[in-house]
Amino acid sequence: MDIAHLEQLAKLIRYFILISTSAAQSGHPTSSLSAVELMTALYFGGILKFDLDQPDNPHNDRVIFSKGHASPLMYALYAAAGKVSQAELLTLRQFDSPLEGHPSMRFPYTEATTGSLGQGLGIGVGVALNAKYLDHSPSITYVLLGDSEMAEGANYEAMELAHHYQLNNLVGIIDVNRLGQRGETMAGEDLLWHARKAKAFGWQTFVIEDGHDFNQILSVLEEIRRSTIHGVRPSMIVAGTKKGRGVSLWEDQENWHSKQLNEQQLATALQEVGAFDKNLKGIISSPEKSSPFTTLSADSSHQAQPATPDYSQPTTTKLAAAQGVVKAMSTHDRLVVLDAEVSNSTHFDLAQKAFPDRFFEMFIAEQNMVGVATGLSSRGKIPVVSTFAAFLTRAHDQIRMSQYAETNIKFFGSYAGVSLGKDGFSQMGLEDIALFRSMLNTTVLQPADAVSAYHLAQTAINQPGNVYLRTVREPTPLLYELDETFEVGGSKTLKHSSADKVTVIAAGITVHEALKAYGELLRQGISIRVIDLYSLKPIDHHTLERASIETQALITVEDHFPEGGIGEAVRSALPYCQVPIYSLAVSKTPRSGLPQELLAYEEIDAAAIVKKVKEIVR
Amino acid sequence: MDIAHLEQLAKLIRYFILISTSAAQSGHPTSSLSAVELMTALYFGGILKFDLDQPDNPHNDRVIFSKGHASPLMYALYAAAGKVSQAELLTLRQFDSPLEGHPSMRFPYTEATTGSLGQGLGIGVGVALNAKYLDHSPSITYVLLGDSEMAEGANYEAMELAHHYQLNNLVGIIDVNRLGQRGETMAGEDLLWHARKAKAFGWQTFVIEDGHDFNQILSVLEEIRRSTIHGVRPSMIVAGTKKGRGVSLWEDQENWHSKQLNEQQLATALQEVGAFDKNLKGIISSPEKSSPFTTLSADSSHQAQPATPDYSQPTTTKLAAAQGVVKAMSTHDRLVVLDAEVSNSTHFDLAQKAFPDRFFEMFIAEQNMVGVATGLSSRGKIPVVSTFAAFLTRAHDQIRMSQYAETNIKFFGSYAGVSLGKDGFSQMGLEDIALFRSMLNTTVLQPADAVSAYHLAQTAINQPGNVYLRTVREPTPLLYELDETFEVGGSKTLKHSSADKVTVIAAGITVHEALKAYGELLRQGISIRVIDLYSLKPIDHHTLERASIETQALITVEDHFPEGGIGEAVRSALPYCQVPIYSLAVSKTPRSGLPQELLAYEEIDAAAIVKKVKEIVR
Repeated sequence: MDIAHLEQLAKLIRYFILISTSAAQSGHPTSSLSAVELMTALYFGGILKFDLDQPDNPHNDRVIFSKGHASPLMYALYAAAGKVSQAELLTLRQFDSPLEGHPSMRFPYTEATTGSLGQGLGIGVGVALNAKYLDHSPSITYVLLGDSEMAEGANYEAMELAHHYQLNNLVGIIDVNRLGQRGETMAGEDLLWHARKAKAFGWQTFVIEDGHDFNQILSVLEEIRRSTIHGVRPSMIVAGTKKGRGVSLWEDQENWHSKQLNEQQLATALQEVGAFDKNLKGIISSPEKSSPFTTLSADSSHQAQPATPDYSQPTTTKLAAAQGVVKAMSTHDRLVVLDAEVSNSTHFDLAQKAFPDRFFEMFIAEQNMVGVATGLSSRGKIPVVSTFAAFLTRAHDQIRMSQYAETNIKFFGSYAGVSLGKDGFSQMGLEDIALFRSMLNTTVLQPADAVSAYHLAQTAINQPGNVYLRTVREPTPLLYELDETFEVGGSKTLKHSSADKVTVIAAGITVHEALKAYGELLRQGISIRVIDLYSLKPIDHHTLERASIETQALITVEDHFPEGGIGEAVRSALPYCQVPIYSLAVSKTPRSGLPQELLAYEEIDAAAIVKKVKEIVR
Repeated sequence: MDIAHLEQLAKLIRYFILISTSAAQSGHPTSSLSAVELMTALYFGGILKFDLDQPDNPHNDRVIFSKGHASPLMYALYAAAGKVSQAELLTLRQFDSPLEGHPSMRFPYTEATTGSLGQGLGIGVGVALNAKYLDHSPSITYVLLGDSEMAEGANYEAMELAHHYQLNNLVGIIDVNRLGQRGETMAGEDLLWHARKAKAFGWQTFVIEDGHDFNQILSVLEEIRRSTIHGVRPSMIVAGTKKGRGVSLWEDQENWHSKQLNEQQLATALQEVGAFDKNLKGIISSPEKSSPFTTLSADSSHQAQPATPDYSQPTTTKLAAAQGVVKAMSTHDRLVVLDAEVSNSTHFDLAQKAFPDRFFEMFIAEQNMVGVATGLSSRGKIPVVSTFAAFLTRAHDQIRMSQYAETNIKFFGSYAGVSLGKDGFSQMGLEDIALFRSMLNTTVLQPADAVSAYHLAQTAINQPGNVYLRTVREPTPLLYELDETFEVGGSKTLKHSSADKVTVIAAGITVHEALKAYGELLRQGISIRVIDLYSLKPIDHHTLERASIETQALITVEDHFPEGGIGEAVRSALPYCQVPIYSLAVSKTPRSGLPQELLAYEEIDAAAIVKKVKEIVR
């Protein structure tokens, strides 16, 4: 490799970083400058294999900027490669520009929407897992990490899992520029602190003392490319760099994070960068077309169709939902299941038994599980993420970022609500509907019986984008025949007459309480309407509005906290509602006990519904 | 120490575990049995210093069961110490029993409400930080960890910070029983895998090959007690154990997690435990009364009162809120500030400058930050947790558990909403109101100007329980005089006349948009009411209801996603509302841009309000 050429390219890239952030008067030039040589060597030093004209080529290597605030460097690299013009660079961070403050899907070469730190490595694990086990591609995944973000625990979840799955095709690069946004990181310039940790997690670890020396960088990157082909361990590069490298005002200085140069300072800085040819172009090697590549479908869709389950006995929605996913796996060869070490409770061990090649154990590390799902989704897979509803809160930030990555993830949260019983509050998902309803372009479903769970699980797979499906631990009697159909955005009116005084709207376990209340009230001569609102987002406006016109009041009943749940979903669906909307929801600290005791304590059981109806109707 | 006595006690404790979980026909006996010797040695082997009659004595050592599902062991230990009767043990997991499935505050000796795995070590860091730096107590904090939960990244955040703060008074004990709930952990029985990681994080590390051998256990615990007094490093014990130890049906066997014995199996198991004296009592040593102990107030409340800030120029709510906290710190000596490496953005560096002894840098590790806050709160401190609103989602599970721990944490989320501008969606808190509104007993506040931010920050400190205060990056003009008062549950009606056609309800940045719309509409001859709804939970029902009676419609305007936010809070406050409630909220994927461009794009600016009002009034 021609080092002099790389040095010229590094000047061009520094120039791009400085002019774009100065034009924006915003952004993170100092964090970008520290990694210029690391990324220039990777992209243009013959290491990276990427076909710029076919970004979706599964043979392409992948580069994830986990330190997403170094986006000016990312854009500069693609500018040096000829894919972004200088004029475009000057639109950095403007409203109409795809060059956002942190990488977004509006820029065509973004591999991962980052910016919330400590998420890139988990996404990288997903991408590398996909290449190794699903696409069987020689693609290597590189993740650029900041030293400050190594304080985030999600990195260690990712490291552990990458070791477990022997992801020799995953390379982390920690840009140790010593400085976080407000001062030194915990480790300062101690490269060995980072290296010791990576080594203890079983990674092949390389230290580059001077992360601005192309010879040192290339020597390590080339060694990894040689060794990764045959090894079983992921690689971590720990590189010593200087924040703001190349600009004397900034270099290795505190208090310049996310700050810009004025016009005169920019002129000085550009002088310091030195002379170079602005028409220089960096060449990224393309992947070899002949490299082995088998599609997923060749491997794992030869299974027989699973038999239709028998739901004649009371069955849990969690079991039926898992069975629905297994059914869908037999026809969707891109469907992959991730489990956070609870598959024997959630019944997703059925997926493991039926399709072992498409089941991945994520252990108890929910953040990384969602990161992996995001990575898998970015490579065209449909990941199912399964754990207890309560523990999806652990990955809220990763779920939040996935909405912006336009992923196609199916979240299955089981053991929701106080009906979980004896295990107590720590295991009860009571804020999960609020969490998922607040996500853009996300579908939220909650089946009330085994048949609807079985069908809605399959609907979730087919529905584009992120979907949340909520199930419970308690077995429930059947409400529907197996040939019933369930549309996203629909509902089922289970009890209905022209004499209905009040409408009770429920979902999941509370549908059964509503039906018990219906029976009791009927005995007392009061007729109520009962709606199974299995689709919480989108919601069945029409049926709700009709109920609000035809009955005197609406009562929502949910095994969830009041805020952001079914009550508020119904209220938001009916901005013009002329009748009162009452909400029965979990509003006291729950505890261990029997499901029925807890439903009664929280006043979301049949007795509470009966009481409320009689207050209204009396 | 009399090992034979400890062995007898271990039999008693095994007996208690078996009879309680058999009576409950629920719970985690196998996970409890593996740690019997570890905990018996700690509690009754002369190691732990704890005054059972004064649980709040600051000299007491603390034991946190991070593997909260081992609660049957915890209750058995206090039974062996004479503080729980056998009859009480048999109420395990019953609705009225304080012996819940996972430790809750209803049991008087619970140090931390756990059950969501991987949270105990962070809480332990908070407790140890408190003892070392605030209470100046010789108290040692022990955290019992499961090997499965070591997959959670939050543990590594905690390890890193404990090393950074040289918490020689913190001892982790990993109970390596090899088996998770569905099979082997990633590390299996490899003790050195766990030990290498702890060592790489700078912990003094001890391996106990046989975690059922009292001699081995005591030797390590005693060595730590000797060394911790003089050292600067936290200690990690890695102990090899057998899941289900002492019951041949279970011991080291898979598929018995959370499963129970039938009557005959119980009889056999109790025979295996062997004979012992049921009247045996374990003695826990008390702390020495003479140990040094200085209260916090002696150290750090001698500061002069900060001057009242000057808000004559447009000021950000984030700055004023930080100034309000600094003001409160001068009178509340138990107020402590935690920062996730953004103090120069959030202005909480002011707290660091004014009260360096009560400011702790948590680096970029939000989960651990909330864990530390939970630990500090459990020891009577008032922790302020500060980062960007968006990144509080990272700690959602820890926040969720804190509501059950009855903590007194003040969450300050800054840089909320799309008004953040050029940095783009990754930094924008748009689901934070939904997150905090869904928490029990939690107050949610959002000031619209510097004066209200300054006052509400102080109100947040004085308000019992968890509080969330939301601020933004954009400077805003003043709305209030400095002597204005702001009650929790109140609101301010900024514009009001008998001619009001529509009421616009806003909070934070959107209040200013509502006021601009007011001016524009007034010029067009349309009068609107404008309410600054700074208290989102609890909410000012009275003012909202009055507006719904006196005007034709309500419009909520929020820089937040529609679900769980201000719109839904207002709708839930008005179940009988007879006029339409419209909601303007963020509903498109945001991006980088100028604040005003983004407010316009999301249709939450003055123009969007004017348009909506005119649709209604026309």
